Amino acid sequence: MPCAVTKPLDTVAIVGVGLIGGSIGLALRERGLARNVVGIGRRETSLALARDRGAATATTLDLAGGVASADVIVVCTSVADIARHVLDAAAACPLGALITDAGSTKTGIVAAIDGRLGRGVRFVGSHPLAGSEKTGVAHARADLFVDRLVVVTPGTTTVEEDIEKTSEFWTSLGAKVQRMSPEAHDEAAAAISHLPHAVACVLAKTTESAHLPLAATGWRDMTRIAGGEPGLWTSILLANRGNVLKGMAEFEKTWAALRQAMERGDATAVSTLLEEAKHKRDAVGS
Amino acid sequence: MPCAVTKPLDTVAIVGVGLIGGSIGLALRERGLARNVVGIGRRETSLALARDRGAATATTLDLAGGVASADVIVVCTSVADIARHVLDAAAACPLGALITDAGSTKTGIVAAIDGRLGRGVRFVGSHPLAGSEKTGVAHARADLFVDRLVVVTPGTTTVEEDIEKTSEFWTSLGAKVQRMSPEAHDEAAAAISHLPHAVACVLAKTTESAHLPLAATGWRDMTRIAGGEPGLWTSILLANRGNVLKGMAEFEKTWAALRQAMERGDATAVSTLLEEAKHKRDAVGS
Repeated sequence: MPCAVTKPLDTVAIVGVGLIGGSIGLALRERGLARNVVGIGRRETSLALARDRGAATATTLDLAGGVASADVIVVCTSVADIARHVLDAAAACPLGALITDAGSTKTGIVAAIDGRLGRGVRFVGSHPLAGSEKTGVAHARADLFVDRLVVVTPGTTTVEEDIEKTSEFWTSLGAKVQRMSPEAHDEAAAAISHLPHAVACVLAKTTESAHLPLAATGWRDMTRIAGGEPGLWTSILLANRGNVLKGMAEFEKTWAALRQAMERGDATAVSTLLEEAKHKRDAVGS
Repeated sequence: MPCAVTKPLDTVAIVGVGLIGGSIGLALRERGLARNVVGIGRRETSLALARDRGAATATTLDLAGGVASADVIVVCTSVADIARHVLDAAAACPLGALITDAGSTKTGIVAAIDGRLGRGVRFVGSHPLAGSEKTGVAHARADLFVDRLVVVTPGTTTVEEDIEKTSEFWTSLGAKVQRMSPEAHDEAAAAISHLPHAVACVLAKTTESAHLPLAATGWRDMTRIAGGEPGLWTSILLANRGNVLKGMAEFEKTWAALRQAMERGDATAVSTLLEEAKHKRDAVGS
């Protein structure tokens, strides 16, 4: 265990104190991992709630001021804003601070930042797979990251020590860490998160309102993520557009095979496809 | 409250003591609603488990013998077998017994039975929307139907008294009952259950095994029902083939709109679609 995260940090700044940022703040404080947690946001009402919930010890609307004495900065804003917020934070934070993020896509963000940070400031991208259809600090939980996976995505210039420090930050919150390239992350995230989101939204939108009173566990489970914030998800889908479109094309192939089997009334073909689906699903567990 | 279900029934026979049949047996016994619960099945091992779990007071492999003294018979077998089991039960049960079922499709079953029961035997179709990807009496629960919806689907010759008696049977287990024609049920069930099942299976099958280790809540929730028993679900999808294919065609229209918006990189169109999906989802609740 090489470095600082195992003893309490002095100050962690969190840019964007919503579900993810707020949960980081709660976890840091509950676990005694940071003396100060500075919450940085755009709306005073959210920041007041973050203070009330104990997700931050201090808050500010001013990014530069908020990161001025931070050892570690975590940018938890929309994927469309993350690179800009990282660069802004890097210009205002102490020499040698470590910046990471919580964005659901990584290639574009890492590329926009890689090699552009001066003053010994380090950035390592992260993606905690711990989201929810719920948003806002009101739903933040200190245990949100416990046993969840966080993918850490070093860029081409990232040094080992910074990867380790970032990984330790997340494991200190209870998460498991997996290291992937930004590109491999985005391909996997498309398959496991972004394509499913698109599918859930298409299913929810397709369902006629007249049929909704019959919605039971199956429909509810399948469409839950369609309740997520449309603006955030539009940014994510478009930031990972190439991979999502590739996933959609794969989905269409399987879909066409099922539709054709249904049109033929081919029980064997339908059943085989359902068996293969079950096999994949059973490999993952509940 | 017109009739017998409010005082304990003497004997209820359950044909197919799996998740649904076993849960009916447990609920009947826990609530003191039947003196005898006869479990009828095809495998002695399942029947032994049903007895051990208390889901049946007696069990038999012989359908005719099992229903011989039943006041109420509930057929909980695969949709492909239900009509045959109802007709077999009707030929062997006491005069005036009431038969219902728990099949996920109704039009074909009701049509195959309507007008073919002699000897004062009555049949009213039912569909408890309380399934799960889990199967077998091992997962049965006495509270499976509490606050769940059961659709009761009278045929053209069904008399009011029988609909009420069937409805009371389910409400006595804690369920809410909605009355629909078999045709309206099957259309709604396609939208709310059978199409989602097809979508979940296509998504699960499409996901590359290499990406499964990253599967978090979203993918797990969305594909959970794909873990259901392929044989049972093949029967359901094919029994409701026309409605499922209609639903698939509607899904394809929304899907194509999303894909085209993604191809154009059209944030407004993507966001509008996601807003509409969220609106539908939020109308249902968690």
